[in-house]
Amino acid sequence: MRFRSNLRSVCVFVICLSTALQLRAQNDPLPSWNDTAPKRAIVAFVDKVTKEGSPDFVPVSDRIATFDNDGTLWVEQPMYVQLRFALDRVKELAPQHPEWKTTQPFKGALDGDMKAVMASGEKGLVQLIMLTHSGMTVEQFQQIVTSWLASATDPKFHKPYTECVYQPMVELLAYLRANGFKTFIVSGGGIEFMRPWALKAYGIPPEQVIGSSIKTKFQTVDGKPDLIRLPEVNFIDDGPGKPVGINQFIGHQPIAAFGNSDGDQQMLEWTASGSGARFMLIVDHTDGQREYAYDRKSSIGKLDKALDEATAKGWTVVSMKDDWKQIFAFQQ
Amino acid sequence: MRFRSNLRSVCVFVICLSTALQLRAQNDPLPSWNDTAPKRAIVAFVDKVTKEGSPDFVPVSDRIATFDNDGTLWVEQPMYVQLRFALDRVKELAPQHPEWKTTQPFKGALDGDMKAVMASGEKGLVQLIMLTHSGMTVEQFQQIVTSWLASATDPKFHKPYTECVYQPMVELLAYLRANGFKTFIVSGGGIEFMRPWALKAYGIPPEQVIGSSIKTKFQTVDGKPDLIRLPEVNFIDDGPGKPVGINQFIGHQPIAAFGNSDGDQQMLEWTASGSGARFMLIVDHTDGQREYAYDRKSSIGKLDKALDEATAKGWTVVSMKDDWKQIFAFQQ
Repeated sequence: MRFRSNLRSVCVFVICLSTALQLRAQNDPLPSWNDTAPKRAIVAFVDKVTKEGSPDFVPVSDRIATFDNDGTLWVEQPMYVQLRFALDRVKELAPQHPEWKTTQPFKGALDGDMKAVMASGEKGLVQLIMLTHSGMTVEQFQQIVTSWLASATDPKFHKPYTECVYQPMVELLAYLRANGFKTFIVSGGGIEFMRPWALKAYGIPPEQVIGSSIKTKFQTVDGKPDLIRLPEVNFIDDGPGKPVGINQFIGHQPIAAFGNSDGDQQMLEWTASGSGARFMLIVDHTDGQREYAYDRKSSIGKLDKALDEATAKGWTVVSMKDDWKQIFAFQQ
Repeated sequence: MRFRSNLRSVCVFVICLSTALQLRAQNDPLPSWNDTAPKRAIVAFVDKVTKEGSPDFVPVSDRIATFDNDGTLWVEQPMYVQLRFALDRVKELAPQHPEWKTTQPFKGALDGDMKAVMASGEKGLVQLIMLTHSGMTVEQFQQIVTSWLASATDPKFHKPYTECVYQPMVELLAYLRANGFKTFIVSGGGIEFMRPWALKAYGIPPEQVIGSSIKTKFQTVDGKPDLIRLPEVNFIDDGPGKPVGINQFIGHQPIAAFGNSDGDQQMLEWTASGSGARFMLIVDHTDGQREYAYDRKSSIGKLDKALDEATAKGWTVVSMKDDWKQIFAFQQ
């Protein structure tokens, strides 16, 4: 009798414990993160800035967090998604541009010769982007992007690009918003290339997406007003351009910033320079099996100086291999 | 007995009616508006876009409303507040610029000769603004603006400028936000001149203020990163620049726009051009007694072509004299 009673108690205890653990797992806002230093640092930061009465408390209006996109929120290898889009656009527009058959980088794009495309350098790449991204209304461009993303797939994961977003970062965005943060994208990529899908993929609305841009012109034809995209650079939101873009669009300093490459270094420095609690995080691509392994020597998403600075200043560095339980939602 | 019972019923009815009317008055979100056509049009628009199942229903993410600032949200006569700020800055900076004693428009600013200042034309005024607004960090500029606004007063109302905001428009901003709208300023005025006080005056945070700007440069001196304001125009957010600015900063079309001059015409056209329910409103300054009376012939805040278009297209036109019960909070 005594034994059976004890057994019953143990059973009840085990059931309770199991339920409690399940609940705890359900309540974990960052389930795709391993319980290592980066996750602990994130939670500790959020706790201290949201706790009223804490010396580090930050009012909701100042809880601004900025995220790089390529390589921080979604895959950037083996080439930036937007470059892939531009190359596909070259093929589509080629009939209207017979001169492209003999002019680089367009010839390279048509021949599938990436070496020739890359050899055209920054000037050539900017021209490639500008000419394939202009000459239509902003509305038409949105439709072109949306329609391209609906059919294009990532060459390694064979999934739509909008599914190749990092699940731990999607959870982090939601966790910050649940704690009163306003989350912004601050990317070197095209602002109007990201806006059509950022809400669905990341929960970030168009007005919280900052990026590089070409100029637009307002014109009215037959009484219909339109914004036409011009083949002229407006703003490059990369490197030192990131704090400039943040100031221009947001008008105050972030208290948290997230990047993965040297192009994010100044954004993190600018974030770190403010007074009060600050959080700076760098994603290091260390997982050649589940994603890619690259940093100091990569031509895309090079992470070298910013990694040194992160180490020197104690910024949080995420090793994708060690700190992320899962990288993509589709990799269950 | 019967009479007394009836009397009691009447008394109870009157008390109930009076309470109901009081409650209704307390619940009126636009108490400074007369019950005339503009107020009714605003309420009807908000009702139809927020009513689920209505053919005009608009989801919260698309409830974007844009407001001009000078002359729409606060006083712009007898000169733009920011011009007054620039003139005061000229006096303050004059000891460092001996050449200003003999160069227009600076000489005019120092002599209090507004005719000479205005005679320098747009080029002169832009130079006046640029040189008085640059050469410091963005943080220092915020402090300069804040400190100037704390002591400067409007020459007609003898109140701080931040109190010379239109009470009916402040109520309108709050009413729209209470109905799920995101409210933005889209002004020809300087973006960094407005941001330090727009939250307190209008409930609009820095990241929802769009305006004209000069360039900034990111630099690190002795390990301290800063954004330095340069004497170089970055963007003019006026006329056709307003839809361009809206697209650049917000990334989707507003469904409601509010202005008071020809400089707002393209913003209202751009807003009107979208599909679905739209609301365009122009504030006409018709109250020489309580504020100022000016429109078609004014050099500041000229309202001529936009007024014709408003009439032709049935946009809402507010006559400040007839449609606003009260103009400023201090005019009780």
